[in-house]
Amino acid sequence: MKSGRHFLQIPGPTNTPERVHRAMHRSVIDHRGPDFATLGAGLLEDLKAVFKTESRVVIYPASGTGAWEAALVNTLAPGDRVLMYETGQFATLWKNMAAKLGFDPVFMQGDWRSGANAEAIGAQLREDKAHAVKAVCVVHNDTATGVTSDIAAVRRAMDEAGHPALLIVDTISSLGSIDFRMDEWGVDVTVAGSQKGLMLPPGLSFNAISDKAMAAAEANGTRRSYWDWRDMVGPNASGFFPYTPATTLLYGLREALDMLAEEGLENVFARHARHAEATRRAVAAWGLEILCRNPAEYSNALTAVLMPDEKGADALRKTILDGFDMSLGTGLNKVADKVFRIGHLGDFNDLMLMGTLCGVEMGLNRAGVAYQPGGAQAAMDYLAANDLP
Amino acid sequence: MKSGRHFLQIPGPTNTPERVHRAMHRSVIDHRGPDFATLGAGLLEDLKAVFKTESRVVIYPASGTGAWEAALVNTLAPGDRVLMYETGQFATLWKNMAAKLGFDPVFMQGDWRSGANAEAIGAQLREDKAHAVKAVCVVHNDTATGVTSDIAAVRRAMDEAGHPALLIVDTISSLGSIDFRMDEWGVDVTVAGSQKGLMLPPGLSFNAISDKAMAAAEANGTRRSYWDWRDMVGPNASGFFPYTPATTLLYGLREALDMLAEEGLENVFARHARHAEATRRAVAAWGLEILCRNPAEYSNALTAVLMPDEKGADALRKTILDGFDMSLGTGLNKVADKVFRIGHLGDFNDLMLMGTLCGVEMGLNRAGVAYQPGGAQAAMDYLAANDLP
Amino acid sequence: MKSGRHFLQIPGPTNTPERVHRAMHRSVIDHRGPDFATLGAGLLEDLKAVFKTESRVVIYPASGTGAWEAALVNTLAPGDRVLMYETGQFATLWKNMAAKLGFDPVFMQGDWRSGANAEAIGAQLREDKAHAVKAVCVVHNDTATGVTSDIAAVRRAMDEAGHPALLIVDTISSLGSIDFRMDEWGVDVTVAGSQKGLMLPPGLSFNAISDKAMAAAEANGTRRSYWDWRDMVGPNASGFFPYTPATTLLYGLREALDMLAEEGLENVFARHARHAEATRRAVAAWGLEILCRNPAEYSNALTAVLMPDEKGADALRKTILDGFDMSLGTGLNKVADKVFRIGHLGDFNDLMLMGTLCGVEMGLNRAGVAYQPGGAQAAMDYLAANDLP
Amino acid sequence: MKSGRHFLQIPGPTNTPERVHRAMHRSVIDHRGPDFATLGAGLLEDLKAVFKTESRVVIYPASGTGAWEAALVNTLAPGDRVLMYETGQFATLWKNMAAKLGFDPVFMQGDWRSGANAEAIGAQLREDKAHAVKAVCVVHNDTATGVTSDIAAVRRAMDEAGHPALLIVDTISSLGSIDFRMDEWGVDVTVAGSQKGLMLPPGLSFNAISDKAMAAAEANGTRRSYWDWRDMVGPNASGFFPYTPATTLLYGLREALDMLAEEGLENVFARHARHAEATRRAVAAWGLEILCRNPAEYSNALTAVLMPDEKGADALRKTILDGFDMSLGTGLNKVADKVFRIGHLGDFNDLMLMGTLCGVEMGLNRAGVAYQPGGAQAAMDYLAANDLP
Repeated sequence: MKSGRHFLQIPGPTNTPERVHRAMHRSVIDHRGPDFATLGAGLLEDLKAVFKTESRVVIYPASGTGAWEAALVNTLAPGDRVLMYETGQFATLWKNMAAKLGFDPVFMQGDWRSGANAEAIGAQLREDKAHAVKAVCVVHNDTATGVTSDIAAVRRAMDEAGHPALLIVDTISSLGSIDFRMDEWGVDVTVAGSQKGLMLPPGLSFNAISDKAMAAAEANGTRRSYWDWRDMVGPNASGFFPYTPATTLLYGLREALDMLAEEGLENVFARHARHAEATRRAVAAWGLEILCRNPAEYSNALTAVLMPDEKGADALRKTILDGFDMSLGTGLNKVADKVFRIGHLGDFNDLMLMGTLCGVEMGLNRAGVAYQPGGAQAAMDYLAANDLP
Repeated sequence: MKSGRHFLQIPGPTNTPERVHRAMHRSVIDHRGPDFATLGAGLLEDLKAVFKTESRVVIYPASGTGAWEAALVNTLAPGDRVLMYETGQFATLWKNMAAKLGFDPVFMQGDWRSGANAEAIGAQLREDKAHAVKAVCVVHNDTATGVTSDIAAVRRAMDEAGHPALLIVDTISSLGSIDFRMDEWGVDVTVAGSQKGLMLPPGLSFNAISDKAMAAAEANGTRRSYWDWRDMVGPNASGFFPYTPATTLLYGLREALDMLAEEGLENVFARHARHAEATRRAVAAWGLEILCRNPAEYSNALTAVLMPDEKGADALRKTILDGFDMSLGTGLNKVADKVFRIGHLGDFNDLMLMGTLCGVEMGLNRAGVAYQPGGAQAAMDYLAANDLP
Repeated sequence: MKSGRHFLQIPGPTNTPERVHRAMHRSVIDHRGPDFATLGAGLLEDLKAVFKTESRVVIYPASGTGAWEAALVNTLAPGDRVLMYETGQFATLWKNMAAKLGFDPVFMQGDWRSGANAEAIGAQLREDKAHAVKAVCVVHNDTATGVTSDIAAVRRAMDEAGHPALLIVDTISSLGSIDFRMDEWGVDVTVAGSQKGLMLPPGLSFNAISDKAMAAAEANGTRRSYWDWRDMVGPNASGFFPYTPATTLLYGLREALDMLAEEGLENVFARHARHAEATRRAVAAWGLEILCRNPAEYSNALTAVLMPDEKGADALRKTILDGFDMSLGTGLNKVADKVFRIGHLGDFNDLMLMGTLCGVEMGLNRAGVAYQPGGAQAAMDYLAANDLP
Repeated sequence: MKSGRHFLQIPGPTNTPERVHRAMHRSVIDHRGPDFATLGAGLLEDLKAVFKTESRVVIYPASGTGAWEAALVNTLAPGDRVLMYETGQFATLWKNMAAKLGFDPVFMQGDWRSGANAEAIGAQLREDKAHAVKAVCVVHNDTATGVTSDIAAVRRAMDEAGHPALLIVDTISSLGSIDFRMDEWGVDVTVAGSQKGLMLPPGLSFNAISDKAMAAAEANGTRRSYWDWRDMVGPNASGFFPYTPATTLLYGLREALDMLAEEGLENVFARHARHAEATRRAVAAWGLEILCRNPAEYSNALTAVLMPDEKGADALRKTILDGFDMSLGTGLNKVADKVFRIGHLGDFNDLMLMGTLCGVEMGLNRAGVAYQPGGAQAAMDYLAANDLP
């Protein structure tokens, strides 16, 4: 029997606030009745601010994986070429999905330690004189590597190439944690999920859709039903959905949006940045290496840490889970057993972070990993000295 | 400000038990960790008993609509003919979906007051010498009409026709309320959702899959990803899922399965039958007509009631919602404004039913509908005189 | 295994609203910290409106029984004479407590079917030339009998007698259900509890205290500690308490006070009056007798019903509990087995009432009690015809 | 808006586990019905194991302060002499209560840094030839000082003095955290509360009562009602209570007792000992002094730390609350502003402790207190190196 609270420090699902749990502990209401309309309309409106868009957001009762599929099947026709960038495991899975669904993904190779190379994307697009590429897909923050890509730079590269492709961005592990500006950055479709920066349990996912993307969807003949944006628009206008929504998760979303608004999105981002920097100071003090090569691309949502010998991450994670009741993220695919990932996103604060980092440090000790003590101390020094701006 | 508990008497989502709400009020755990494996494996095993199958069940973080889509895209190839029976609005929506997804639905006309005609299905199949029909789709209990179809008879008709089509059955509003026997009745794919007899909020849906259907899926080239059964099988074997599951709803499912097992499925069915009969006695006493023509096909999950003048159902529903804080089901499509629907399924008991029926009777009175008093009295007489068997 | 919601129709504890349960599902905070001060100060201020007083209210982490004791030990010195009126079991228990605590209760005999006789109280006080009587204690609404006493009349009688005794009133089952006006009626100490009209679980109780009573307490030498008002005043001024408060119940109280304010106290009283009248119409239609003799004294919080043969109430209650999962109040002491009590107070509405009355009617049927059918029908007729004013 | 979970590290109320909150989120049931009897009887039986007694436990809907009063008024007659030992603020408050209630406390002076001196108690009792002292009262773990007294030694001293006084022990902040053996140590009355080691919100308190104490109560004429053990015995025998119990807190108690049994009481004590030792190592590394002078008396439930200049504790606490969202215990009375107290009891684990200690260390830094860094590091070193036995 373990006592006390589990530390859920995978990079999502994240720790859900009591307020969200309380909000969801409510009887279901008629999803065709007036109270629901008020709820639904408010959510659909207030979500826009989180995506920093003035266009529209649709909500799926589905995992983030479903929102990936929705983004593709609404905008792409069978056989359409789509340029995708290999930032890590989630970019890879998305690419696999595109192939399974009958599209033609061109996968630009990455090293799993860097963000999307905007210049390379621009070059590729400039070569595509025929505009065979219909969309560019980038993962804003690859949860497998802890690397954040510069979406504004990707948009600039597309514009400089004069290429009309849609820009589709996965923000599953960045939205509500790392600044994302859909309209300003010219993103056409944004993919998001409930279980990370939105501080909800998993079960909801989102597409935010530019007018250009919506027009593409209207003209697009790809067979689709559950994910079809066109069926959402009508009911959404009055706060309803074309099929039964996941009502209790929507209650939670209402509370989460209120919490983000109360704290202020920019404060939320600053909080995440502060915790991420403290984490990186700890990693440096331990003498360990961060997977992400380029400091400008460090993720503020999670930090992936390389094992000294490029192995043993899973044994370390097991030591920490068994000994200290903390879940850390595993290394995936190409970095399996080589990295462990520390999630520091969502409903989080300084002392939860320190509990987390101390758990890692004690785990390194117990698991016999070669490390230098002092990581938690370094993080503390940073936190104590740096108030939120 | 309304006081007291809302009566959610639409035919689903249904009233969720406190036990289920409590079970869901729990922090999320790592969906790749050992505690989750235990949870997942138990659910996947115990669900089988509810479907009365020994094959396999997959769980989607999705509405029931998603499970409809899953059943089709896994088993049918583009252009495949599928025989669907028009029992009511939900059969109609499913047929529309099949067409949207690029299949070739043949929609056998019904009158929205009767179940699927097994004999007619058999006749149709006998004519299909080439076996162009790849699947027969029937809604076990059409939520729009309150008519339950005889699935065993459909299977017999298929067998007698010697036709190899798959039998796909929607049990969204029957599972856990009305007896359904997947293996005994030779059903190949069963579609279900969380928010009716399973007493959960919406957000989960299910496919139960026979070996024959699984084999068809393995051979089927239809493009699919989120719904792909083939991707489920591997992770499910150890209690995991291919993408992030809706963890808190799974907690609720654990509790709901325990509750069904504690009461005993046969007792659950007998309880629903008793409440449905009491409801029908009330309707008869009011001098109103039940939409379902054939007593053998009366639904034990809901009762759709015809308005005396074939209009005014929505005004009545509004009177009842505003005056007595009860939600009833609306008439859909062909029976819009002509019928209202009383849900009497899920976590329910005699006094909740009597509150419901009294609410209808008082609403008939207030709304000025032509009716005879005495419906609630007739239901009470029946309930008082008839213990559960 | 019972399905559906239990009907808790004892006259308290009452059905607690989901909102209150949600509010209580919150981690405990430091009862000496600033957030608590805000909570406490708000509660102590807002409670006054519920008692209709401008003086002060103290909150005990205790049952209502504790608040009885508090009212006595703060105002009475050992051996002090106190005039108490036998309205029923709760008046009797309070009298027994006064004797146990060393006071000198004079118990004015009642018939358990009538309220306090103000005229008789006045007569008694006029005879007390020496003013030996230090307090008059009356139960506003005796939960054992369903009789409401006219407190304003008692005050008038006291004034007309020119007697300086304190007026102490138990409103445990009336506050928040039946109009009570502490200041206007000249009440000196009001005793209340959390688990009836305040819609909370049991565990909190209250004394509202006039200036005159507070002055008496300051001068009173009776040994006391836990209940001592004098120790409350200081900490309460800044929202704190002299010892650890029952924090989660205070969270619930915050929500309950908000709910009462949203509905409006006068609307709350009208709602209770309407449900009580519907209940009495049902009782009359059943051909049964209400314990309370005088219609002017009918309780709007509960109705005590006499069994036709003055026996068998407990068997009936068991039949109803076992068969229909509803708890009714038992007959206490002098009316044991002779009456059963229907609680219709707290967070309640028309359909919950109809479920309740149908449960009683079906129970009368099953238990073989001599009754006329038609009670639920009579209640329905009343409710359907009478909107809230 | 603060994000993440508050750290409630006052020495009680403590962090309540999700399981307990869930258990309490349940509708109230009839406190006179059969389901309640099962609940009540189980609690009254299972509580005995926590007190390590075979006699009996009574439960009050009240704060721990009420259980203090109950222990005194049931066993002592007016004017009875009672020997009480000044271990700190809570012993002082209890002594004040005894005086207020009309007993004759003899308060043996302590230095607020040491436990009860058993030898001195024995000496005092030996001088009491007339056996005027009726009870000896000791606080097992004074929450104000973090000093644990040796109760077995006190009993031995009493026995060696051949003195018949009752031994009454306050275990409010030790029960369920620090080993306590009522029967083995010859304790006559144990006082306890819900909100510390029992991991519940405040609102319940307890007396465990030896046969000797029960006999004293039967013979004792002190006026009492709410607290009267004699009224408890009858109803308790069948699982009921003489007045309305705090039902939802009892639901929580059921869960808490199950959790303690699952972990095993001895494991619970070992866990607390480990966390306390880690805390003391941190304090030593900071170069600060623990209030408790004698290592044999160190509390395993909390640690009170002296400020270097014997002032500024409250400013430090405010810095920590505002900056790191953690509540620490204040210095009380004689040690006001001189000490701060770290609670490390209840539902707690290594990472929660490390978050706590890091919060203190960062607070010392920010508040400009003279300290040496390295406390958290020292605690980590201890925890990493020392598994639970």
